[in-house]
Amino acid sequence: DRKIHSATHEEILKGATTDIYFLRTLDILKEMDLDSTTVTAEIFPRKHGVFAGIEEVKNILKNKDIEMWTLDEGEEFSPKDTVIRIKGPYKEFGAYETVILGALASACGWATAAREIKEACGEKSFLCFGARHVHPSVAPVMERAAVIGGANGASCILAAKLLDIQPSGTLPHAAMLIAGDTKKIAEVYDEVMPEDHKRIVLVDTFKDEVEESLRIAKALGKNLYGIRVDTPSERGGVTPNLIKELRYKLDMAGYNYVKIFVSGGLTPDRIKKLSEVGADSFGVGSYISAASPIDMTMDIKEVEGKPVAKRGRLPGLVDNPKLKYVQL
Amino acid sequence: DRKIHSATHEEILKGATTDIYFLRTLDILKEMDLDSTTVTAEIFPRKHGVFAGIEEVKNILKNKDIEMWTLDEGEEFSPKDTVIRIKGPYKEFGAYETVILGALASACGWATAAREIKEACGEKSFLCFGARHVHPSVAPVMERAAVIGGANGASCILAAKLLDIQPSGTLPHAAMLIAGDTKKIAEVYDEVMPEDHKRIVLVDTFKDEVEESLRIAKALGKNLYGIRVDTPSERGGVTPNLIKELRYKLDMAGYNYVKIFVSGGLTPDRIKKLSEVGADSFGVGSYISAASPIDMTMDIKEVEGKPVAKRGRLPGLVDNPKLKYVQL
Amino acid sequence: DRKIHSATHEEILKGATTDIYFLRTLDILKEMDLDSTTVTAEIFPRKHGVFAGIEEVKNILKNKDIEMWTLDEGEEFSPKDTVIRIKGPYKEFGAYETVILGALASACGWATAAREIKEACGEKSFLCFGARHVHPSVAPVMERAAVIGGANGASCILAAKLLDIQPSGTLPHAAMLIAGDTKKIAEVYDEVMPEDHKRIVLVDTFKDEVEESLRIAKALGKNLYGIRVDTPSERGGVTPNLIKELRYKLDMAGYNYVKIFVSGGLTPDRIKKLSEVGADSFGVGSYISAASPIDMTMDIKEVEGKPVAKRGRLPGLVDNPKLKYVQL
Amino acid sequence: DRKIHSATHEEILKGATTDIYFLRTLDILKEMDLDSTTVTAEIFPRKHGVFAGIEEVKNILKNKDIEMWTLDEGEEFSPKDTVIRIKGPYKEFGAYETVILGALASACGWATAAREIKEACGEKSFLCFGARHVHPSVAPVMERAAVIGGANGASCILAAKLLDIQPSGTLPHAAMLIAGDTKKIAEVYDEVMPEDHKRIVLVDTFKDEVEESLRIAKALGKNLYGIRVDTPSERGGVTPNLIKELRYKLDMAGYNYVKIFVSGGLTPDRIKKLSEVGADSFGVGSYISAASPIDMTMDIKEVEGKPVAKRGRLPGLVDNPKLKYVQL
Amino acid sequence: DRKIHSATHEEILKGATTDIYFLRTLDILKEMDLDSTTVTAEIFPRKHGVFAGIEEVKNILKNKDIEMWTLDEGEEFSPKDTVIRIKGPYKEFGAYETVILGALASACGWATAAREIKEACGEKSFLCFGARHVHPSVAPVMERAAVIGGANGASCILAAKLLDIQPSGTLPHAAMLIAGDTKKIAEVYDEVMPEDHKRIVLVDTFKDEVEESLRIAKALGKNLYGIRVDTPSERGGVTPNLIKELRYKLDMAGYNYVKIFVSGGLTPDRIKKLSEVGADSFGVGSYISAASPIDMTMDIKEVEGKPVAKRGRLPGLVDNPKLKYVQL
Amino acid sequence: DRKIHSATHEEILKGATTDIYFLRTLDILKEMDLDSTTVTAEIFPRKHGVFAGIEEVKNILKNKDIEMWTLDEGEEFSPKDTVIRIKGPYKEFGAYETVILGALASACGWATAAREIKEACGEKSFLCFGARHVHPSVAPVMERAAVIGGANGASCILAAKLLDIQPSGTLPHAAMLIAGDTKKIAEVYDEVMPEDHKRIVLVDTFKDEVEESLRIAKALGKNLYGIRVDTPSERGGVTPNLIKELRYKLDMAGYNYVKIFVSGGLTPDRIKKLSEVGADSFGVGSYISAASPIDMTMDIKEVEGKPVAKRGRLPGLVDNPKLKYVQL
Ligand SMILES: [Zn+2]
Ligand SMILES: [Zn+2]
Ligand SMILES: [Zn+2]
Ligand SMILES: [Zn+2]
Ligand SMILES: [Zn+2]
Ligand SMILES: [Zn+2]
Ligand SMILES: [Zn+2]
Ligand SMILES: [Zn+2]
Ligand SMILES: [Zn+2]
Ligand SMILES: [Zn+2]
Ligand SMILES: [Zn+2]
Ligand SMILES: [Zn+2]
Repeated sequence: DRKIHSATHEEILKGATTDIYFLRTLDILKEMDLDSTTVTAEIFPRKHGVFAGIEEVKNILKNKDIEMWTLDEGEEFSPKDTVIRIKGPYKEFGAYETVILGALASACGWATAAREIKEACGEKSFLCFGARHVHPSVAPVMERAAVIGGANGASCILAAKLLDIQPSGTLPHAAMLIAGDTKKIAEVYDEVMPEDHKRIVLVDTFKDEVEESLRIAKALGKNLYGIRVDTPSERGGVTPNLIKELRYKLDMAGYNYVKIFVSGGLTPDRIKKLSEVGADSFGVGSYISAASPIDMTMDIKEVEGKPVAKRGRLPGLVDNPKLKYVQL
Repeated sequence: DRKIHSATHEEILKGATTDIYFLRTLDILKEMDLDSTTVTAEIFPRKHGVFAGIEEVKNILKNKDIEMWTLDEGEEFSPKDTVIRIKGPYKEFGAYETVILGALASACGWATAAREIKEACGEKSFLCFGARHVHPSVAPVMERAAVIGGANGASCILAAKLLDIQPSGTLPHAAMLIAGDTKKIAEVYDEVMPEDHKRIVLVDTFKDEVEESLRIAKALGKNLYGIRVDTPSERGGVTPNLIKELRYKLDMAGYNYVKIFVSGGLTPDRIKKLSEVGADSFGVGSYISAASPIDMTMDIKEVEGKPVAKRGRLPGLVDNPKLKYVQL
Repeated sequence: DRKIHSATHEEILKGATTDIYFLRTLDILKEMDLDSTTVTAEIFPRKHGVFAGIEEVKNILKNKDIEMWTLDEGEEFSPKDTVIRIKGPYKEFGAYETVILGALASACGWATAAREIKEACGEKSFLCFGARHVHPSVAPVMERAAVIGGANGASCILAAKLLDIQPSGTLPHAAMLIAGDTKKIAEVYDEVMPEDHKRIVLVDTFKDEVEESLRIAKALGKNLYGIRVDTPSERGGVTPNLIKELRYKLDMAGYNYVKIFVSGGLTPDRIKKLSEVGADSFGVGSYISAASPIDMTMDIKEVEGKPVAKRGRLPGLVDNPKLKYVQL
Repeated sequence: DRKIHSATHEEILKGATTDIYFLRTLDILKEMDLDSTTVTAEIFPRKHGVFAGIEEVKNILKNKDIEMWTLDEGEEFSPKDTVIRIKGPYKEFGAYETVILGALASACGWATAAREIKEACGEKSFLCFGARHVHPSVAPVMERAAVIGGANGASCILAAKLLDIQPSGTLPHAAMLIAGDTKKIAEVYDEVMPEDHKRIVLVDTFKDEVEESLRIAKALGKNLYGIRVDTPSERGGVTPNLIKELRYKLDMAGYNYVKIFVSGGLTPDRIKKLSEVGADSFGVGSYISAASPIDMTMDIKEVEGKPVAKRGRLPGLVDNPKLKYVQL
Repeated sequence: DRKIHSATHEEILKGATTDIYFLRTLDILKEMDLDSTTVTAEIFPRKHGVFAGIEEVKNILKNKDIEMWTLDEGEEFSPKDTVIRIKGPYKEFGAYETVILGALASACGWATAAREIKEACGEKSFLCFGARHVHPSVAPVMERAAVIGGANGASCILAAKLLDIQPSGTLPHAAMLIAGDTKKIAEVYDEVMPEDHKRIVLVDTFKDEVEESLRIAKALGKNLYGIRVDTPSERGGVTPNLIKELRYKLDMAGYNYVKIFVSGGLTPDRIKKLSEVGADSFGVGSYISAASPIDMTMDIKEVEGKPVAKRGRLPGLVDNPKLKYVQL
Repeated sequence: DRKIHSATHEEILKGATTDIYFLRTLDILKEMDLDSTTVTAEIFPRKHGVFAGIEEVKNILKNKDIEMWTLDEGEEFSPKDTVIRIKGPYKEFGAYETVILGALASACGWATAAREIKEACGEKSFLCFGARHVHPSVAPVMERAAVIGGANGASCILAAKLLDIQPSGTLPHAAMLIAGDTKKIAEVYDEVMPEDHKRIVLVDTFKDEVEESLRIAKALGKNLYGIRVDTPSERGGVTPNLIKELRYKLDMAGYNYVKIFVSGGLTPDRIKKLSEVGADSFGVGSYISAASPIDMTMDIKEVEGKPVAKRGRLPGLVDNPKLKYVQL
């Protein structure tokens, strides 16, 4: 009668998601009286990226008899940089290798993708809309990592709560389709929402995007903060030419205060091109949610103070000036 | 004082990870007396894949006043196939769109990658070793999906428990490095483990893989089930030539009963080539863990029995003979 | 005070557009008493194509003391096929080489492009809309060649007259822009035109193509023969997805008798794709008008009955079973 | 009993080659009392090019009640530059859209290709030899445009007359083949031509080009102005190595005053390479004659002084500082 | 005062060209009392090819106390095929490894290239003209290998003597240049040579190849066996078009008995194309002379009857049914 | 009863390896009283390279009644540079064309490849190990050319003798396999060799290269000069990662004085990469031995002081400031 397959917080903290072979290793080392051997382990990635997930790692290792050094969340790392160093009796942390590496891999993957989007946006803002593309248990982990990487907000309610911000987002196509007319629902939306809410209306459901935008701008007047364009791929998606025409015609009709918000399969490249012709803000989903985890490796670098390594690796510690000592 | 950022089961079930705009939509539709409108929504993917994650979706929608049709776990779908159809008052399920799509996207992504591995393995078996590459909260979700896709086992303890199987795996490099010699630890491992455990020893830590394999085979005799080769990329990884030589020399020395288990960056292509020259079994990590979620779209296809669609989509239901009615 | 730079019919017939060196050649050969030498010349192309232009050539050579063999208009030729053979005293036709080759080159180029369009259309029809892309003096030459190649009609009035058919075409964007609304002008157009005229209305000027089509279909009812879609490249052009949606929604609304006519940068490839999803008829401009002329070469193959050739060519006649004797 | 299919000057001027739909448009607008609406239309190309053909356009629009601004012949334009602006009652010029655009498209295409050749030639000269590759009615239009683009002369007699220059050209292969020996005909050509004519002899008909050049140079002595090399593709065409050898051996034999004139499939690239090794002058055919027309678009930008545009285009005038007011 | 740097036959036979480390190996093995160890060594290539050079190897190993198995000259081998197996005390043949491998590598490389030419020639014949591209000491080795591969003759006098055939070849460009006229020297050549000599005359030195061929054919009449075309790359080399024209014009003039012999940078591809249009015979230089040696490896596969191998290779003999026992 | 097929020194010097047609040419020219014609011939290559082989050419032409100019061995030449000029009666040297060109072609090919290796090595040294890949008669010719190109030594005994240097090289895999253990044979090798011999031991025969290197370093102590790594392609060859790890672990163990010598399929590119991570010296085989000969052409440029050339070439001498007069 377990309804959801994800691990609970308690299961994670007590190591239930670890790989079986770490438990076996501890049994065997104990048999050899080696389980308390002092080792120094280092964690490193194979790719460039943005560091995230360390807060969970600290909670997992809290109260263990070890020393730890690490990077801060949001800092960038290069391939083979040491991002965490742990020193202590192997039995204190050996069984958590799976859990630690996994927490970092996912978070760093999402934070890194968000950073690439941020670099494309420059001064302009973007929201993370990826919650619908990942398992709900990690949706808040992802949106939190996206904000570390540079996102200006998130639509997932729980994520916003964790980050202590307001969740963001407009009305979806479903609302329009049920109401049957964009203008009709936009008017109710305008009435219902609190005064300080920034009204943004989705304009591609029924009519030509430009025609609908002008119609909504006329209906809501100064109350309209922006319009959202999300043209589906079957209609060619949102193109620079469309945004250019939309901006031009909104301005011509006196609506230069209306912002243009774009969503739908956005990538850094597309964002740069749309931004140049007048898009003001972006909603990004798959580019962040589908980012591959950044795989992390944990290597034992010293055993009882002596450098070691397996074949193919160089023995001994690898210094990284960004590492800071962490109080657990 | 929340230690882990993932959503708890309770949070997921009560919709805390949904996107904010669905709640707003319900408010506004209510204002318009439209929240109880009967709608039929369909969920479809954009890519070919293997269906997984539906058990969680059923639990999420349990006790709602809706009708639902869906595929079985493990069935394959093509692009634009309807994989779920839901009919009922919009307020009954509208707010769960984010959660449902996310649960499917992740699970289908992993199951599909596992199926590709399965097709490369043919009659041979493989284990999912990807737990270390994803957030611990979804590690059991991933390993469960991998088994749906075709994996013969998993190393994550909790996943094995959920699947009601024994977790699998050998000893890691860390054990070898702390013990300082592969033969020494292999002998203790052999003593300590229950008789029916299949002893598999990792052979690339200190010595030439072939030399170490012969040394371990001599030491453990008939107790040795197999050896694992995981040569790091710095040493060229595991190649067909290496496996061919290893098999040849094990056989020549009379150890033809010793299985060869391979791990390290495996893909369907590499598995096919290694299998041809004698590898017996495989451990697969990133190929499964880094699989992109298969994004799902939920479109409203009928409103009060009348076909609707936004611009770019075709109104009305899309039949799929694989759909079965589900008792919630 | 010549208003137009093209050659008049009289100038062409008397050889005024020939290259100067042919006149000089005749002077010099006369000085050598060689201008009456009997020669056999053959004309051949370098590419595959469709033969056109021979009617003008016959008129140019009418009453000359020569024998001539040639292909029929509309027949296909392969590279190096003899398409015309002329035998007679060199002075009778030598000065017309430039004129003959030019008349064929242009006409064959256009007819060949039209044939490629025809092959893409299969049973469906297409009109040549290229008059606006070529000098008005050759617009009727081009449209005539297009009909030889397979076009079902032409929009150029003079061309239609030469071909003894009705000129075809709908109303242009200019009409819509001046009237300010597509429906308004469509209604007047419907009133004004004779009953048997097939009413086709252009629908992409102001609104979403699908919305406008349904609006016009409702307004004109059974009087509407078809709609024309000519979406500009700035809006992604006419795509298979758009046609598919348009056909689907016209049918759903009961307008399955309304034909879909497409124009705008059409090529054989695009026509095939649009035809598959429901386009009924096509308007083709640049693909025909911008077709390169098919350059023709005239080589002297016999002098006084003896095979000759310049270096690089093979002396003597090249037989072609398609050649027929022509009465001049 | 029309012998040639091209339009006569009278037909062009009275609009007989226009597309039928412009006449219909006028009828319908008249019915709506809109045919005298004041509109401003602009013509623009999609590509970079050289402007030509405006003289004919002015003659076509002479005496109409409109204002017009335009570029000069020979000026370059960029994509989307306004090249012509016309303002006045629509009925005054609407029916001439087809004719005007066509006159420009062909002339600009040829002038642009000629300009590219000119840029490759630098200080050296080239002649347009393309008359044999286009319909005789437009041969003078093409050669005139080529001269606007940069050609130093033309071989078509009528074109030369229109341009008030001497037509240029040497003797063709036909002359050599009938005479049977290059030297024999060269000697007669030398005798017959006026003293100030620049004698150029074609040398690739029967013998090795170098051997024949030296033979002709010896025969004509100081009377020889140059030789023409036109080696056919079957013999590898005219190559830089051949020109280098020819120049070297002419110089070695004391004929350094003999110019080398090249023809046969020349392109800007080949001209640059041949020029570097000693070619003095060029005859260019297909590169100019097969140049695609540069399609022009006429858009209505203002109706009764108010900016308009169809979907996908930006309303209102587009300024171009090169535009000058034209007195019609 | 050594005039030539190549090794003499005596130096080769006594091992003076061996690598120094084989001598050292024997010294050290002797010190260890291992120099008389019985070993079995096998020689194998890495590429497909044609076997040649074994006659020299047999002479080098004559009178050694060993057993040997080998392929025949002219047989083909595949990658990793055993081409020679030697069994005996290591000191009997160890020092000859360098010499044996080298003799095979060069000869097999040349024989293989000749075989590729042979396959392109089909029934037609070709001569090896590569002597001028390799050191004179190996010119006869190369031409002998070429004949094993399929060449029908060789121009090197010593090679012909070794092969007991007549050396072949025509007159070079030097002869033509000194005589100053091809016809003049061809006539003397015709007079001087014995009656049964096949007269072949090189025709590209001074004049157009076709013109010169017809001139020589007329001068020598039925005495002319063939003409050789060797057009230099500066003039485009010998092309299929040239051969086609040459054959056509020789036949037209009644010289259908005159053979066409081609030389100059020939490859299998070019030979196939030239053969199709009438070339009768070929002279091949660089394609054979520049063929890379086919590197051979000698591996010890058994030591005192026990299979051995270094890392990366499989221990024990590799059977090849083509191997035959050799009586030394 | 000729045991080896290569030409002897005497055969080479008396012209026995020349092409037959040069002898025929002399006969015919004699018949025409032209064999004593004074000609100037020049030899040129088609590619950039390093000059070698001239010492043999001088010996071949010694005592002929000619004048000669040439480059020095080791000088570089560009395509079409005159590298040798010979002036004198044709009969004095005409028959040696084949021999001279061949001697240069092979030697220049090898010297050029060695120069490319030298440029990749920079300050580091390399040995030529290619003797096993070419016919033994030219092995000393090749190794001599390699030293001219930049090699620091050679393993072929005779080549070393000609160059008056010590032959170089370590022990081969055969020695290790017969002895059965690398350490055992390394110890005997250490005892047996003279004190000043630089001991280099091959370490990849039986064990992991790093493990074996440390084992040998411990056994031989300060006597060990270097180790040689020659990992076969079946095991991935020698890679930068392997050398980096080897250097790191040798240094860590206190053996920083031990040099790393690499062999096995080396190219300039691979040498650069291996050198950067710590390789000290290189053994190069196929890159040099398989270098294509650099084909040379001898053209007659003057006959009795008058410039001549065949079609396609420029008559007269081509100056090269590097040419020096040679006293024969
Ligand atoms: Zn970055
Ligand atoms: Zn949308
Ligand atoms: Zn599948
Ligand atoms: Zn490993
Ligand atoms: Zn066809
Ligand atoms: Zn349009
Ligand atoms: Zn320009
Ligand atoms: Zn020509
Ligand atoms: Zn073969
Ligand atoms: Zn030649
Ligand atoms: Zn160089
Ligand atoms: Zn080796």
